Amino acid sequence: MSILVVGSVAYDDLETPSGKRDRVLGGAASHFSTSASFFSPVSLVAVVGGDFDERHISFFQKRGIDISGLQMIPEGKTFHWTGHYLNDINHAETLETRLGVFEYFRPQLTEQHRSIPFVFLANIHPELQLSVLEQVKAPKLVAMDTMNFWITSTRDQLQKVIERVDILFVNDNEAKMLTGEKNVTKAASQMMGWGPKVIVVKRGEHGALLFGQDFVFSAPGMPLAHIVDPTGAGDSFAGGFIGYLAKSQSALDEAHLRRAAICGSVMASFQVEDFSLDRMRTLTAMDIERRYRDFKSLSDFPDTAIFE
Amino acid sequence: MSILVVGSVAYDDLETPSGKRDRVLGGAASHFSTSASFFSPVSLVAVVGGDFDERHISFFQKRGIDISGLQMIPEGKTFHWTGHYLNDINHAETLETRLGVFEYFRPQLTEQHRSIPFVFLANIHPELQLSVLEQVKAPKLVAMDTMNFWITSTRDQLQKVIERVDILFVNDNEAKMLTGEKNVTKAASQMMGWGPKVIVVKRGEHGALLFGQDFVFSAPGMPLAHIVDPTGAGDSFAGGFIGYLAKSQSALDEAHLRRAAICGSVMASFQVEDFSLDRMRTLTAMDIERRYRDFKSLSDFPDTAIFE
Repeated sequence: MSILVVGSVAYDDLETPSGKRDRVLGGAASHFSTSASFFSPVSLVAVVGGDFDERHISFFQKRGIDISGLQMIPEGKTFHWTGHYLNDINHAETLETRLGVFEYFRPQLTEQHRSIPFVFLANIHPELQLSVLEQVKAPKLVAMDTMNFWITSTRDQLQKVIERVDILFVNDNEAKMLTGEKNVTKAASQMMGWGPKVIVVKRGEHGALLFGQDFVFSAPGMPLAHIVDPTGAGDSFAGGFIGYLAKSQSALDEAHLRRAAICGSVMASFQVEDFSLDRMRTLTAMDIERRYRDFKSLSDFPDTAIFE
Repeated sequence: MSILVVGSVAYDDLETPSGKRDRVLGGAASHFSTSASFFSPVSLVAVVGGDFDERHISFFQKRGIDISGLQMIPEGKTFHWTGHYLNDINHAETLETRLGVFEYFRPQLTEQHRSIPFVFLANIHPELQLSVLEQVKAPKLVAMDTMNFWITSTRDQLQKVIERVDILFVNDNEAKMLTGEKNVTKAASQMMGWGPKVIVVKRGEHGALLFGQDFVFSAPGMPLAHIVDPTGAGDSFAGGFIGYLAKSQSALDEAHLRRAAICGSVMASFQVEDFSLDRMRTLTAMDIERRYRDFKSLSDFPDTAIFE
């Protein structure tokens, strides 16, 4: 089944202990779409400026991503993020954010996009997330991401979005900010009370916790000796997660959710191996299959009794 | 098989968000012994003062722990730790450490203790850990723990101990301090180069990573809604880990190491549910068996292929 993603396509200037890159392809929707495209058809709704390189358009097309919803404003500039990971590879420090054309972004879905069964609301203004929800027609599944900025500045609107989604992706800190709970289990339980059937707490190198209706699943983080660029890991995670669910067509069944969390972890583990979306350019289904088995081997243990 | 543990038996004054307790039973060797005693016979070598309560002696005896090596110095005072977890349940802040009789502790093993096949060197001065290694007779397996204080103050002696053990338990931060490596995988690889066959990196609520000769295993942390007192969680983890290996008699085989890490996680997850060793007073083999299955359910996922 198809996935509709609405979010940012951006240029990133970034520096990590592995090096420095200027004007590379970034943005939550780019990372999500690319990751999800390995599993299911994806339609991308976003906006870029006249400075957006044709090569990136070709990259999306090569990944089979429908970019009929990628609006281009010739006189404007593409959203531009500048940041680094020099003090801690696990935490981005933002140096500058230039919204460019993103400031006036008002997603207008085509008739065809409104009927797409899986919807992912990437990290954008909750007002825009709501406007997408007003336009879509009875989707099978809606998932969303957000960030600390919206939690502090537009809490009421954000709350309305959360109440209408099936799956909420947050990180540890966002879960605490949203609920005022220091304990992640209590925080998840509180958030599920608001509406979502599934809460996914992303924990960076420590993996992710998935809270379902009557189960909890812990997806490990793959211990990697070389992390080149963590930018987009969370969106690649969500892309693998939702991509797998859309592929399996079995949205909220426990076994599929567990596999979805591992597919997300697999995609995030590849994402960080190179700058920008570079690792995704050569990635194959066989690589994904192999890393999925690596995750199994990483976390598997015998389930026989200990005491006779 | 039997386990010999050498370390501290202490009184703790502590405060957590759940409450305050004074002069409760603590110390690395108390926690390790109690946890390990659910799996294998344990001999405890430590020292206490004349102020040590008979009830704690009875507790160890009730757990079947051999305390013939628990020396008592009537004119001295038991090691006493005061700390709290008020700002962050995952980090102890030490307010005071009174060494008492521990200052003059020089472990003297009996002939019987020297022949015990499994040895655990709890977190004590590396000089004392070395002295124990000089006394034991060809043990089947030696494991050790340490702390940041010894890494900074007695690095050379500590290094000598590490070179002689089979299993090294450290936490994330200690791994980084010991190696100067920020990346835990690289740190583990460096430490394995020093001698240990297995490196276990404890990560608190995030579980543990086990690095073996040719595999890595990630044991999840059990997401608990109520954490009463994290004191001793690391030692309970090591106790379950080594306790299980001694029980299975199959020291460094991969499947047993994976199960050992889960047994450690199971014991740590119980340890934090109440103050001091209180949860251990009522714990049963059936509870352990059940929580082991909970860990399986927490981390299990289907291993069938994703792409046809």
